[in-house]
Amino acid sequence: MTRVKYEDMRLEFKRILMKRGFTEDDAGAAAAVFADNSLDGVYSHGYIRFPRMVSYLDQGVIDPKVEATCEMAFGAMERWDGHRGFGPLNARKAMDRACALAREFGIGLVALGNNNHWLRGGSYGWQAANQGMIGICWSNTTPNMPAWGGKDRKIGNNPIIFAVPQSNGEHVVVDCALSQFSFGKLEEAKLAGRRMPLPCGYDDDDNLTDDPAPVMANLRLAPMGYWKGSGISMLLDLIATVLTNANSVQKIGTFGAEVGLSQIMIAIDPGKFNDPALTDEIVRTLIADVRSSEPLKGGPPVRYPGERDVKTRKENMESGIPVNDEVWTQIQRL
Amino acid sequence: MTRVKYEDMRLEFKRILMKRGFTEDDAGAAAAVFADNSLDGVYSHGYIRFPRMVSYLDQGVIDPKVEATCEMAFGAMERWDGHRGFGPLNARKAMDRACALAREFGIGLVALGNNNHWLRGGSYGWQAANQGMIGICWSNTTPNMPAWGGKDRKIGNNPIIFAVPQSNGEHVVVDCALSQFSFGKLEEAKLAGRRMPLPCGYDDDDNLTDDPAPVMANLRLAPMGYWKGSGISMLLDLIATVLTNANSVQKIGTFGAEVGLSQIMIAIDPGKFNDPALTDEIVRTLIADVRSSEPLKGGPPVRYPGERDVKTRKENMESGIPVNDEVWTQIQRL
Repeated sequence: MTRVKYEDMRLEFKRILMKRGFTEDDAGAAAAVFADNSLDGVYSHGYIRFPRMVSYLDQGVIDPKVEATCEMAFGAMERWDGHRGFGPLNARKAMDRACALAREFGIGLVALGNNNHWLRGGSYGWQAANQGMIGICWSNTTPNMPAWGGKDRKIGNNPIIFAVPQSNGEHVVVDCALSQFSFGKLEEAKLAGRRMPLPCGYDDDDNLTDDPAPVMANLRLAPMGYWKGSGISMLLDLIATVLTNANSVQKIGTFGAEVGLSQIMIAIDPGKFNDPALTDEIVRTLIADVRSSEPLKGGPPVRYPGERDVKTRKENMESGIPVNDEVWTQIQRL
Repeated sequence: MTRVKYEDMRLEFKRILMKRGFTEDDAGAAAAVFADNSLDGVYSHGYIRFPRMVSYLDQGVIDPKVEATCEMAFGAMERWDGHRGFGPLNARKAMDRACALAREFGIGLVALGNNNHWLRGGSYGWQAANQGMIGICWSNTTPNMPAWGGKDRKIGNNPIIFAVPQSNGEHVVVDCALSQFSFGKLEEAKLAGRRMPLPCGYDDDDNLTDDPAPVMANLRLAPMGYWKGSGISMLLDLIATVLTNANSVQKIGTFGAEVGLSQIMIAIDPGKFNDPALTDEIVRTLIADVRSSEPLKGGPPVRYPGERDVKTRKENMESGIPVNDEVWTQIQRL
């Protein structure tokens, strides 16, 4: 394991993306998405994913020249078309626009259709919070879970993000996919010969099970909160599809790849009603209260959502981002 | 069991409320909240709750003359103060205002602080959808669950609602509290000597358990989706507290009763971008797809969120609302 300085990683990504036809600005912004996700410790959506994205560019699946465009606008709400361009850049642009609308109207919404995978949804929550905004956003996905009570995959694990800013940059951010466990977590447990701590899906006899093996084979993941997440998933998909008039989870399931997603970006400006110091005090008080919880027997202290990101970010900024040598060497050769 | 006609129930509630000092308009609107919840089959938040609300009026805990007022406004966003008036009336007013803002700006948000319990959150989703709006709303609560990893109750089961309209009135509405199970469901299972189908909280040794008995005693309910619902709960509370600058879950916990809650109402007007027929088609397609799921072995067909409400509403409108005779007699004497 090597540690790579944040700035070196970002510049390396930028170099590779400019070579593939991104403008200098776009290459810089796209590189920052991958470098920032790595910095925050979300390596799966950071440097580890980078070579796959480059291969999409090399195959022509993603066109670096394509940019999202505004199709319809009404007051504080806009509909954008991502034209299946580079997902994270379009998503950043959409959240920036939602923040600009919030500055103008208090709240702003951008519905972005036909976009590609946005990588890590949480990054758009951090992006809004870095502008002093409350951010709420979600994306639909390919159909990857059965609806509650069903066998076949009909709903998406549509990730949803909520973010509240602190002016010191230590924002409170929840980023959660609507499956109870990610496929990656099932994989880890299966490799380690462990069961999941809670039911993670269905076995082939239609019983809920905490054994990852059958679920990895039949792909019948359980929704977060079971029937609750199933309902929330349908509603997030519906809202995104209605506001974009683009692709629903069902439609995306016909594309053969997870492309052309529908995403909603909402920004709310608390500064219209509160001094930043007041918002900070409210946030600080909640964090302090939650952290003062008595931990479970032998358990770690209770954390607030986003706390780990801040800690990892500081460590990785100081000591460099830990990378798998093989993957990093592969990247340097791109 | 008797069946009471919807209109008779509503007029009976209205009579009782006018006798307690509500204006005729307010009495009519408040009566409709209780009658509508009963009509939809949510009896616990309908006629069954009505006598308790009247006792609050008789004790002076709720003042029927107090009305929510707008304290701050910026573009598509307003902050209202409920002055601890009658929760459901204030909440209806706030959602109506959010819908008016959405008609003007595409999206509207009303942050309502110092309000009392709104009864059934779903009713404000139906209310928005009845105006052709997408509705998103939530309320905080008293601290009634431990945060993930903690023992003491620090977070609320803050209900969140998402609603998407269909022009035939058969809206798609999710209304879910952020505990995996309600206290009522634990009670039912305990009385029947059953375990819960999934872990519902902690036993006194800090282990997750599906036995309702210890959880009913120690009140350590598990959040919906466990760690996921815990994080979402904190964020919904934070957003509501920041935008109202009123009471957080923690603060409400110091009041000795579940009063002075913070609520967020968001309405989005899909009619700004779509013909109603287009929105209807998107909704119909999703519903049809989900209902076409292959059901679990021996299980019922898969339903969409809101489907049961529509069915019960039709049945109760035709045959009358089934009421417990004792409770109904008690109400008629009020």
